[in-house]
Amino acid sequence: MAKWLDQISVPTLLLDETRVRRNIERMAANARTGGVRFRPHFKTHQSADIGMWFRQAGVQAITVSSVAMARYFTDQGWDDITIAFPVNLREIAEINRLAQEIQLHLLVENLDAVAFLAHRLAAPVGVWIEVDAGYGRSGVPWNEGAGLTALASAVADNPLMALRGVLTHDGATYTARAHEAITAGYVQTTTRLARARNWLIEQGFLGLEISVGDTPACSVVADFAPADEIRPGNFVFYDWTQVQIGSCAWDAVAVAVACPVVSLHPERNEVILYGGAVHLSKESLQREDGTPTFGAVVLLDDDGWGAPLDGVWLRSISQEHGVVRCTSNAYARLIERVRVGDLLGVLPVHSCLTADLLKIYQSIGGKRIPMAPIPTFWTTAGL
Amino acid sequence: MAKWLDQISVPTLLLDETRVRRNIERMAANARTGGVRFRPHFKTHQSADIGMWFRQAGVQAITVSSVAMARYFTDQGWDDITIAFPVNLREIAEINRLAQEIQLHLLVENLDAVAFLAHRLAAPVGVWIEVDAGYGRSGVPWNEGAGLTALASAVADNPLMALRGVLTHDGATYTARAHEAITAGYVQTTTRLARARNWLIEQGFLGLEISVGDTPACSVVADFAPADEIRPGNFVFYDWTQVQIGSCAWDAVAVAVACPVVSLHPERNEVILYGGAVHLSKESLQREDGTPTFGAVVLLDDDGWGAPLDGVWLRSISQEHGVVRCTSNAYARLIERVRVGDLLGVLPVHSCLTADLLKIYQSIGGKRIPMAPIPTFWTTAGL
Repeated sequence: MAKWLDQISVPTLLLDETRVRRNIERMAANARTGGVRFRPHFKTHQSADIGMWFRQAGVQAITVSSVAMARYFTDQGWDDITIAFPVNLREIAEINRLAQEIQLHLLVENLDAVAFLAHRLAAPVGVWIEVDAGYGRSGVPWNEGAGLTALASAVADNPLMALRGVLTHDGATYTARAHEAITAGYVQTTTRLARARNWLIEQGFLGLEISVGDTPACSVVADFAPADEIRPGNFVFYDWTQVQIGSCAWDAVAVAVACPVVSLHPERNEVILYGGAVHLSKESLQREDGTPTFGAVVLLDDDGWGAPLDGVWLRSISQEHGVVRCTSNAYARLIERVRVGDLLGVLPVHSCLTADLLKIYQSIGGKRIPMAPIPTFWTTAGL
Repeated sequence: MAKWLDQISVPTLLLDETRVRRNIERMAANARTGGVRFRPHFKTHQSADIGMWFRQAGVQAITVSSVAMARYFTDQGWDDITIAFPVNLREIAEINRLAQEIQLHLLVENLDAVAFLAHRLAAPVGVWIEVDAGYGRSGVPWNEGAGLTALASAVADNPLMALRGVLTHDGATYTARAHEAITAGYVQTTTRLARARNWLIEQGFLGLEISVGDTPACSVVADFAPADEIRPGNFVFYDWTQVQIGSCAWDAVAVAVACPVVSLHPERNEVILYGGAVHLSKESLQREDGTPTFGAVVLLDDDGWGAPLDGVWLRSISQEHGVVRCTSNAYARLIERVRVGDLLGVLPVHSCLTADLLKIYQSIGGKRIPMAPIPTFWTTAGL
């Protein structure tokens, strides 16, 4: 194995910079071709360095999922940030500080929050009405005209809040497994958002935009209309889920967790890894036979990693252990290449959660790329 | 709400020190009554301060799940530590440093690892043979006499390795839901371990002990024989899983995550929390109707939290969102007490993973209790 891999002693998040930059370029090109604003979600990578690669690809506006993340990227020079989470009233002090420093955009989806903001906001913000287009998480149901009107009116009543448009996250595409299903889901979601937007225009709220942004749709859909803005995040790394969905090929997956092999169990065609729930997260996918997998398995080499191994999958994880199951043939092939003390790679099921757990990247070749430091998050959290 | 709760603005791990100390005292008493050594697993809390509470209860020897955690607690003055994970050969340098400083115990379960240690160990260690008593994770199968003998012989051949006994973790009790099932599982596991130990004694390896230690069994079983040592960890906090198993009552659960309420959805009897997979982990339990729950929901007050609310459960989580589902009656009661901007508490499904994610505790009253700092872990990781 190469020198840089020799230095790895514990589960380590490997990052293929070439793939990351290619993923960014491709999505930026999709947005340009589609005539929509590209406001990528930075919750996936949470890294100032990777943020710079977006900037080099022409990105100027970003999305984050928490106030602390908005603070981190504001301190890195980003000045146009949407916090894509229903506004958390308990963080109003930091929201006001951010609103004084940058162009901050908030999500609202209930009148209580708007009333609170009307009293407590100290600087201008852009406001998006979060719409539930059928996913059933947060947001005003897309077809509740009265609710949409009431929210828009409450926002418009306050001079510090500029109503920007309607916004959704369509998590439903994550259960799709074909391009046709993803496209159909995108059409349904954006049609519903357009109806909500058009309803509000009829009520006299002009100039409203539509913002969408799940990675499957943004990776696959040819025509973004009627959207004005896309906010995908996961695409920067992709992961094993996105390969299963069909959002990308395996060679677009830009992160893998290098895991030390601690045991071989030929009697059950299994390999025990140092790499568990505290490294990968407990996110799982269902295999065809209904059993779960916690990641695909790859061989590591000097240049990164190869294709996911056929007949090899991470069948279970506990806090620190990963148990890799193989078919008999796959096991026989695997142990020709891998011994106790070597490393195996795991393509995570959900790269956002895996990155959030491991907190630092190591590029192919060994360069360290930090994420937002934990202390920043906790000190801004007001604890 | 009380002043200290008012200071909480983001998902925060609350800790009830009274319950933690009571859980520690009870388990220490169980061990004393049962005549076994109490070597608690510190992977659950990962905190020097909470470690001191164990010391005050008479604990002198501990268990951890990683070399980095062994380093952290060594630096805190602990000098008798078992790393309860198959030895990771890639960390031999740090293992040797630890072995020179403290009484370190390692787990082995394959000849490759023992051969490596025989060449590379630089200081004496205690060695336990990890036995698989039926759980199917790591360990030598309990009934593979030849395998056990070969391992014991290889260990005994090296003067730096002192063979201490046979050890297992019985994760199977986590699927039990009655005391009888837990006890039956414990009897089966320890009977198998005793057979492995007795086999080795017959082969001439004398003075070997038996070490076991899952929280369900250690909480419920009346008679620990034939074990010599127990290593439970989760009991320090317990969690919603342990309540379901029957290891403890709800009022023994010593941690809850305070989550800001960001939205109420009366049309579907749901409450949206700021609190998701990056705070709680994606660990879930199956409810009686087959749907998952990601935690029980409690009301917070000055003194901590009350009983889990009937008819209220965390039905789904994404990276930052938690969706609480209620029955109609429970929703009606809940919104009499809780508004947007308030806090709700979540009893986590798996407290070890939740603590590992949140990295700092806040005691009832507002005192901060840190965990092992991330930088220690990463700098010792050799990155």
